[in-house]
Amino acid sequence: MENLNRIRNENLHNRVVSAEEAASWIQDGMTLGLSGFTRAGDAKAVPLALVERAKTDPLKVNLFTGASLGCDIDKLFAENNMIIKRLPFQADASMRKKINKGEFYFYDQHLSHTSEMLRSGTLPAIDIAILEALAITEDGMIIPTTSTGNNLAFAQSAKSIIVEINMTQPELLEGVHDLYAPGKQGERGPVPIMKPQDRIGVKGIQVDPERIRGIVFTEIPDSPSTIFEPDEETNMIAQHLITFLRKEVESGRLTNSLAPLQSGIGSVANAVLSGMVNSEFENLTVYSEVLQDAVFELLDAGKVDFASCCSITLSAPMMEKVFNNMEKYRDRLIMRPQEISNLPEVIRRMGLIAMNTALEFDIYGNVNSTHVSGTHMMNGIGGSGDFARNSRISIFVTKSIAKDGAISSIVPMVSHVDHTEHDVQVVATEQGYADLRGLAPRERAMLIIENCAHPMYKEQLRAYYEEALTRGGQTPHVLEKALSWHTNYAQKGTMLEEKYQNA
Amino acid sequence: MENLNRIRNENLHNRVVSAEEAASWIQDGMTLGLSGFTRAGDAKAVPLALVERAKTDPLKVNLFTGASLGCDIDKLFAENNMIIKRLPFQADASMRKKINKGEFYFYDQHLSHTSEMLRSGTLPAIDIAILEALAITEDGMIIPTTSTGNNLAFAQSAKSIIVEINMTQPELLEGVHDLYAPGKQGERGPVPIMKPQDRIGVKGIQVDPERIRGIVFTEIPDSPSTIFEPDEETNMIAQHLITFLRKEVESGRLTNSLAPLQSGIGSVANAVLSGMVNSEFENLTVYSEVLQDAVFELLDAGKVDFASCCSITLSAPMMEKVFNNMEKYRDRLIMRPQEISNLPEVIRRMGLIAMNTALEFDIYGNVNSTHVSGTHMMNGIGGSGDFARNSRISIFVTKSIAKDGAISSIVPMVSHVDHTEHDVQVVATEQGYADLRGLAPRERAMLIIENCAHPMYKEQLRAYYEEALTRGGQTPHVLEKALSWHTNYAQKGTMLEEKYQNA
Repeated sequence: MENLNRIRNENLHNRVVSAEEAASWIQDGMTLGLSGFTRAGDAKAVPLALVERAKTDPLKVNLFTGASLGCDIDKLFAENNMIIKRLPFQADASMRKKINKGEFYFYDQHLSHTSEMLRSGTLPAIDIAILEALAITEDGMIIPTTSTGNNLAFAQSAKSIIVEINMTQPELLEGVHDLYAPGKQGERGPVPIMKPQDRIGVKGIQVDPERIRGIVFTEIPDSPSTIFEPDEETNMIAQHLITFLRKEVESGRLTNSLAPLQSGIGSVANAVLSGMVNSEFENLTVYSEVLQDAVFELLDAGKVDFASCCSITLSAPMMEKVFNNMEKYRDRLIMRPQEISNLPEVIRRMGLIAMNTALEFDIYGNVNSTHVSGTHMMNGIGGSGDFARNSRISIFVTKSIAKDGAISSIVPMVSHVDHTEHDVQVVATEQGYADLRGLAPRERAMLIIENCAHPMYKEQLRAYYEEALTRGGQTPHVLEKALSWHTNYAQKGTMLEEKYQNA
Repeated sequence: MENLNRIRNENLHNRVVSAEEAASWIQDGMTLGLSGFTRAGDAKAVPLALVERAKTDPLKVNLFTGASLGCDIDKLFAENNMIIKRLPFQADASMRKKINKGEFYFYDQHLSHTSEMLRSGTLPAIDIAILEALAITEDGMIIPTTSTGNNLAFAQSAKSIIVEINMTQPELLEGVHDLYAPGKQGERGPVPIMKPQDRIGVKGIQVDPERIRGIVFTEIPDSPSTIFEPDEETNMIAQHLITFLRKEVESGRLTNSLAPLQSGIGSVANAVLSGMVNSEFENLTVYSEVLQDAVFELLDAGKVDFASCCSITLSAPMMEKVFNNMEKYRDRLIMRPQEISNLPEVIRRMGLIAMNTALEFDIYGNVNSTHVSGTHMMNGIGGSGDFARNSRISIFVTKSIAKDGAISSIVPMVSHVDHTEHDVQVVATEQGYADLRGLAPRERAMLIIENCAHPMYKEQLRAYYEEALTRGGQTPHVLEKALSWHTNYAQKGTMLEEKYQNA
């Protein structure tokens, strides 16, 4: 069996089992640690076999991952009522619906925190880790695939490990990963990364081979990301941010290679990076979570010299291009555990430029990244908090309106706060950007309204702010109207008040 | 002149001037960087002389400091309309009033951020730094007094420096400070602190003596802190937290020496530390911003082995005791710049236990530390954000009610968010504590209501939460009522609804 070449430690050849058999080891109430970060490198065969089993033999588990999963696994686990608690991130419509109905618990965490909480025993230990791999080396090292995520922490915490060797993943990724676990808090030294290129660990997850209970072969490919074609608005956002960054260079605060870039997941963030292909910036580096298509466009264009990440999530065409040509890219990539890609220590030391997506922001610069109308979970905070608080420049982007203008993304008060006014430095929409650094709330308000709000909402925002000023305060508000934009939308289908509708 | 012994570099003897002369160098529109952190080690003579001058010769300046000032300087600057912008923290009633009227700008910052933003050129450079000192050494090193604050960053940024040598400050503080400046972001290595005891810098601020424009002698003492006597409620909060920490020890997650402690400023936080004097915990260490009375009680009781800080702010009796017996304490103290005492890198590496004070928190664990009724500034976020986000355990404390019960400190939705649900792990009042680690919002709500709310508000909170559940969501809310507790208080003088008033 040719596949067995991938299990280089021959003592482990007898551990090969079917996905069904491996799934049969999982018991009701267990805590599973699955590889997988934004659809990339997720364990596939065993979770899918577990879904089949659960249809006749119901069970519920705690489902811990790196971030969201592909192959509809989040959807299937949710629809088959297989979850007690999910953490730290998801992005599936069915799962979201169940979470918002309260059918199971979702713990929405900073993505750098999960590993730390496992190591300290603050989260329940992992019963079984299920980790996708390219291969197992002679000495039992598990080589990850297209994401590194929380794999190392899951392997260290787990009572036993199931390895899924995925024959469709690009073998040339071996050597790209850099696995490093900080010690426990209070017992460890610095994490010695000074630039995105720095290697500090080893190429795989070293475990005692005895802890590998089973090995499953699979050929199910990663789910591609949905296509993130830039549109007119996202291109305009990109151009505004390039203007902002250009001014930073002119002021002498940055050079033409800027600072290591982080970019959140999603079409807006991807478009912003794409926009740099035709900019004057060069010799860029990336220190981010997920690499989306745009980073490979920038690598191809010779704009980016090096990219560090914990996951590679591409569209189908880009996947084909990149994974069939890994020799072109592998020397310019490092994949790290998500607690290292997102570590405050490293983010602050290098002084990243962080670009993340907001659902909405308010006239004082508070950002809501997660909750629709303040109550309903979208995906989760992801790594945005890890990056925003610790970066050199923390940028949030969104389109100024949604639902054909029924929603203004700039509101008097956000209905849920994920990033406080203290952590948000620049906000941008297709209308323009507002540089909030060093500004008091009263200075921010008019800047945000004038530069970022959609013209159809400017007058209504100005009216709110003017009324708020009559109440006074560091951060003036008309408290009884502060959330009225959201309640109006719920009741009337639009945030736009009648008197401004014909303006 | 005996004072001249304090200027050990004889070339600088001719720089001695009166406070009035030094104050005359300050021009309208300048940015001043003043030493001073929560009343300790603040420049006094020159600012007070500037206040006198401003009465007949009006001028306005940007006033940057470490944190709040003593000697009524914040009050006098505010009342005499001398401020364009104030940052990063204040705690004065008159200043607060003017800020809330919008008479000048207040930029409320994470206290670790000011130095970084000066170094990167994101904040305006300092025109004149005015730094209190014990002495100037032979080679021109400025030895700070009872706070280190932003002194080093101000000295590095300033066009010129005025030194105030304060003859009343304890000379034995020389050697206690540890001045260290990280390089610029992207050009620096790790900050190599692994435990509170680690010294990484030098004992004073090294500057080119040519940049010292003037030296002023003063004998104005630090303003003592107002007395923070523990009361019944703060003692109960302390006991609840000791119970929580005891359980952490029993679970094996901590030892009896816990982890380095951080405690925010104020009477509640001070009482919590005081409460540890009679606990079983021992060989404690402190890695905090301000040392208040309680840390010296713990040092005296042999409970704390070592304390690192950026400021020492004591009551009058404790000041007399400590500063007249510095030889007893000096080997167990280090004073660092506030960007080092508050550095995310070090806080996370050591895994601090952070205890900070909330104005209010909500049923989902979001914390408001700064804004009364969501609009009016109290003091500022201070270092609480630096610590809460990066600690091993992030704790927030408050009394469950204020104003004789007219205000519940536990509300459906906080009116301003300084610490998001992602950064708050334990909340405590005199009623009890809620351990929120690993819990989803729906799990947190009933725990907070049952464990922490005052009995007079429990029924009303439960009713809110039950109605919210009918609306659904990850974080259920009745959005149109979410801030009604605050508006009711504004309109009716109490948050307690009529139907619960006779319960």
